[in-house]
Amino acid sequence: MSKIDLNCDLGESFGPYRMGYDDQVMAYITSANVACGWHAGDPMVMERTVNTAKAHGVSVGAHPGYPDLLGFGRRHIDCSPDELKNYVIYQVGALEAFCRAHQVTLSHVKPHGKLYLDCLDRPEQARAIAEAVYSYNPDLIYVAFAGARGEVMRQVASDVGLRVAFEAFPDRAYTSEGVLVPRGVEGAVVSDPGQVAEIAVRVALEQKMVAADGTVIDLEAQTLCVHGDTPTALELVKAIRKGLSDNGVDVAPMASFLN
Amino acid sequence: MSKIDLNCDLGESFGPYRMGYDDQVMAYITSANVACGWHAGDPMVMERTVNTAKAHGVSVGAHPGYPDLLGFGRRHIDCSPDELKNYVIYQVGALEAFCRAHQVTLSHVKPHGKLYLDCLDRPEQARAIAEAVYSYNPDLIYVAFAGARGEVMRQVASDVGLRVAFEAFPDRAYTSEGVLVPRGVEGAVVSDPGQVAEIAVRVALEQKMVAADGTVIDLEAQTLCVHGDTPTALELVKAIRKGLSDNGVDVAPMASFLN
Amino acid sequence: MSKIDLNCDLGESFGPYRMGYDDQVMAYITSANVACGWHAGDPMVMERTVNTAKAHGVSVGAHPGYPDLLGFGRRHIDCSPDELKNYVIYQVGALEAFCRAHQVTLSHVKPHGKLYLDCLDRPEQARAIAEAVYSYNPDLIYVAFAGARGEVMRQVASDVGLRVAFEAFPDRAYTSEGVLVPRGVEGAVVSDPGQVAEIAVRVALEQKMVAADGTVIDLEAQTLCVHGDTPTALELVKAIRKGLSDNGVDVAPMASFLN
Amino acid sequence: MSKIDLNCDLGESFGPYRMGYDDQVMAYITSANVACGWHAGDPMVMERTVNTAKAHGVSVGAHPGYPDLLGFGRRHIDCSPDELKNYVIYQVGALEAFCRAHQVTLSHVKPHGKLYLDCLDRPEQARAIAEAVYSYNPDLIYVAFAGARGEVMRQVASDVGLRVAFEAFPDRAYTSEGVLVPRGVEGAVVSDPGQVAEIAVRVALEQKMVAADGTVIDLEAQTLCVHGDTPTALELVKAIRKGLSDNGVDVAPMASFLN
Repeated sequence: MSKIDLNCDLGESFGPYRMGYDDQVMAYITSANVACGWHAGDPMVMERTVNTAKAHGVSVGAHPGYPDLLGFGRRHIDCSPDELKNYVIYQVGALEAFCRAHQVTLSHVKPHGKLYLDCLDRPEQARAIAEAVYSYNPDLIYVAFAGARGEVMRQVASDVGLRVAFEAFPDRAYTSEGVLVPRGVEGAVVSDPGQVAEIAVRVALEQKMVAADGTVIDLEAQTLCVHGDTPTALELVKAIRKGLSDNGVDVAPMASFLN
Repeated sequence: MSKIDLNCDLGESFGPYRMGYDDQVMAYITSANVACGWHAGDPMVMERTVNTAKAHGVSVGAHPGYPDLLGFGRRHIDCSPDELKNYVIYQVGALEAFCRAHQVTLSHVKPHGKLYLDCLDRPEQARAIAEAVYSYNPDLIYVAFAGARGEVMRQVASDVGLRVAFEAFPDRAYTSEGVLVPRGVEGAVVSDPGQVAEIAVRVALEQKMVAADGTVIDLEAQTLCVHGDTPTALELVKAIRKGLSDNGVDVAPMASFLN
Repeated sequence: MSKIDLNCDLGESFGPYRMGYDDQVMAYITSANVACGWHAGDPMVMERTVNTAKAHGVSVGAHPGYPDLLGFGRRHIDCSPDELKNYVIYQVGALEAFCRAHQVTLSHVKPHGKLYLDCLDRPEQARAIAEAVYSYNPDLIYVAFAGARGEVMRQVASDVGLRVAFEAFPDRAYTSEGVLVPRGVEGAVVSDPGQVAEIAVRVALEQKMVAADGTVIDLEAQTLCVHGDTPTALELVKAIRKGLSDNGVDVAPMASFLN
Repeated sequence: MSKIDLNCDLGESFGPYRMGYDDQVMAYITSANVACGWHAGDPMVMERTVNTAKAHGVSVGAHPGYPDLLGFGRRHIDCSPDELKNYVIYQVGALEAFCRAHQVTLSHVKPHGKLYLDCLDRPEQARAIAEAVYSYNPDLIYVAFAGARGEVMRQVASDVGLRVAFEAFPDRAYTSEGVLVPRGVEGAVVSDPGQVAEIAVRVALEQKMVAADGTVIDLEAQTLCVHGDTPTALELVKAIRKGLSDNGVDVAPMASFLN
C-alpha cells in the first residue's frame, strides 16, 4: 500500500500578529513544520501550535529560518557554516522544548524559506544544517526538496547519517528539470483543488509528475507540502486528503513509514 | 565534609560585543549559568560557552532572562505567568540544544537579573518559572536566593516538585533581614578578596553570615555566586576557591551533592 | 463653529504581517498616529502610511511605543526618564524622516499603548516624553488623555511649553471620575455606530459625556480617537464623521485650529 | 592650502555592551559617523555620541547599516532597492533627531560595513541609498569609496544630485587597481603610526598612494577614515593628525570645504 505524508508550515503568527489558518488545516495534515521564533513564531505561538498538533495526532517538526523577522526568512543572509549550524541547533532545541513540556516527540526538521532554498545552491549550507540536526539528534528526519535539485540535500544527509524525507509541491508547476516554475510566471501555481489532488495522487502512486512542458518527470517524494496561509489552501488540503484516500493511499506521518 | 558549589553567570557576549572573563573564570568555578540569547548571548556564544564549560568539567545551567537585550534583562517587563512560562521553556530548550550537541548534561536553571529578583516579590512569577522548568525536565535544579527573601522560591519549588539550590553572594553585604544592601549604598559591595573568601568559608561551614549591622544571620546555601565581568572578580574567585579548599570545604557541582 | 479632529492609530503592520484597515479608515479621519517601528510598523509600512495620509490630506503624527514588538507595546517596561526621552526622540525622528522625504509636515506625537497609559500614573514619564518632543521640535502637539486623569499630561506639557490636544474615546464607557471603564467589564465598549456618533457629537458640541453611572461629566477634547483594526470600526468612523457633519461640527486636523 | 577631513565610525556601543574608544578618538577627528541602532548603537549611545561630537566641534554624520545587530552589519542581506531606501531614511532620521535635540547640523551619510561595500558591486544599491539621502535632505554629503571602485558611487550621486566626499584608508594597503588588499592577506593592514601618517599626508597633498605592488595610483580623497576600536588606533589618529598639521594640511570637517 502506498503511503505519503502531508506537511504544512504552521505557527507563523507573532505577538499580536495572526498568520495562517492553523486550526483548520491541522485536521487534514499529518506533519506540522513549526516556526521557531526567528523568522516567525514566538513562545506562546509555539506552545499553542505544538498543543494543537498533539490534539490532532499530527507529527511536529522544527522549521528553523534566518534571523530575520522583518523579512520573514525569505531573504538570503550571508552566514558562515558555523553560524548556520548553531542557529539551527538553537531553534530546533527551542521548539523541542515545547514538545518535551507536552510529551510530544519531535519528528523532523525542515529549513524555512530562503534557508531551505539556499541549500539547493550551496552544498556547504545543506551540510551545515544536516550536521546541526545530526549533532542534536540523529533520529530526526531531514525534509528535502524532491527531484534533481534536491540531490545535494540527499548527498549531505547521507554523508552525515541522517534520514531524508523528500517533499513535492502538488500546487506548483515543475520544469522538465524538476525545478519549480518561479511564482509570477503564468501557470506557476495550480489553484484548482481537483487538479492539485490529481497531481498529489500521481506523485504518491507513481512517483511521477507532468512538467509544465508536458514531459513526465520522476519525483520520488515521501511528503507533500500544502500551504496553510490562504482560505483557498484549506480547500486544497481537503481535496488532496480526499483524493489520496479515494485512491487507496495511506496518509500518515513520515516517521511512521520512513526507513 | 562540607560541600559547596561556585556558580558564575557566563556567555553574556553578543555578536561583535565581548563581555566577561569567561575563559579565565571557568577554571575556578563548578557551575556556569549560561545566557540563552534573550537578554544576552547568541548561538555562537552559547556553543562556545558550553564547550568551554565541558572542557573544565564545569556544570552547565540555563540562565533565561526577559526579552530585552537593550536593557540586559535588568528591567521589569510585565508578563503574564503563561508568557513567563513559555519564555523560560524556549530559552532552556535552546540552551540545552547545545548541551545535547556536545554530550553535556544540563544541570540547573537560574533566572537572570530582574527575572530572578522579581521572583522574590511575585510568587506567581516564581511559580510560573518553576512550572516551566518542571514541565521541561523535573530533574533540573532551580537556583534560588538564599535567606528569608528566597522562601517564596523554596515554597513554589516544593509545591511543583523541583529541587532547589540556594545561593549566597559572598561579595555583597546583607541586611539583618537577609536582603542584599542595595548597590550604591556605602559598603554594599565587599571588594577585598581575603574578606570575601572568609565570608564564603563561613557560609559553607556554618551557614551563617554577619549582616551589615553586625547581626549574625542564618544563610543556608548550596552554591555561592561569583561575578565574572570584572578583572578583580577573577581575584575574588581564586581567593574564594583557595579559602574553601584551605578550610576543607569540598567545592563541587551542585548536582553532585544536592539530594 | 465647533471644530474637532478625528485621530486613528495606523501603520501597525510589520514585515509580512498585516494589521488594521488603514486604506479604508484613512478616508474618514483627519489625523493619523503612525507607529515608528518599535512596538509595530517598519520602514516600508511607515513610508506607505505617510504617503496614504498625504494622499487623503490627513495630518501625520508620530506614535512611539516601548521597545517591545512581541508585546505590541502593551506591557510596561521599567525605563528611566532619560531612556524614555531618547527612545521617543529616536522614534519621532525616524517617522519624520518619511514625512520629509514626502514633503509632509509632522503635526503631533501621541505615545502608544502602555507608554501612553503609564503617563497617567507616572508624572516623570509624562514629563520625559514631553521634554523629548519639545527638544526635538517645540511646535509639535502632544496628544493627551482628556479628563481628570490626563491633567498630569496637561501640567507637564504646560511646564515644558508644548501645546496639548486632549482626546476622548467615543466608543468607550467612562466612569464618573473620567476614567475608562476597563475592557472586559460589561458595557465597557460601545459598539452601536449610532450611539457612538451621538457621544462624539456631544463631546464636540458640549464638551460633555454621560458616564456609565449616568453622571454627566465634563470632557474637554480637541480630538476623538477611533479604532482602525476591526471591520466594524470602519462603520463607527463613518457614523462619527457623518454625525459630526450633520450637526455642524467642522472635522479638521488638530493643528488647523489648536492655539 | 590643502584641506582634508578625518572621519571615524563611532557610537557602536549597544545597551550594556561597550565598543570603541569614542571619547579619546573624538579629540583628533573632524567627522563622526554615528551608528543608528540597526547594526550597532542605541538611542542612549546616539545621544551621548552626538553630544560628545558637539563638545569637540566634530561634524556628525549618519552611519546606517543592515538590520543585523547580531552580525554587526557585516553580512549581506538581500534587500530590494525600495527596502534599502526606506531603511536608510529611517536610520538617518533617527540619528538627525538627536542632532536637532542638541542643535547640531547633520553633515553627511556614510553607509556602514557590508551596506557600504555592496554599493561597489551593485549600482542599484548605491543608487537607492543616494536617492534615500537626497529625498531626505539634498544638502547632505554622501561619503564614498575613493578610487576606481568608488566610481559607481560618484556616478549615482551625480545622477541624483548629491555631493560626494571620497574617503581613503591610510592604514590599509591598496592594489594597483585601487582596491583594498583583503584583511588576512600579509601586509593588508599598515600598523606603524609613522608610516600611516606619511601615507595620509601624501593622499592629502598629492592625491596619490603607493599600491602594494609599488605602483603609484591616483587617489582623490576629501576624507581619511581612521579606526576607533583599538587602543593602537588612537596612536594612529594622533600620528595622522600631527603629520597633516606638520605638513601644512588643514584638517577640517568635509562640509567646510566641499563644493
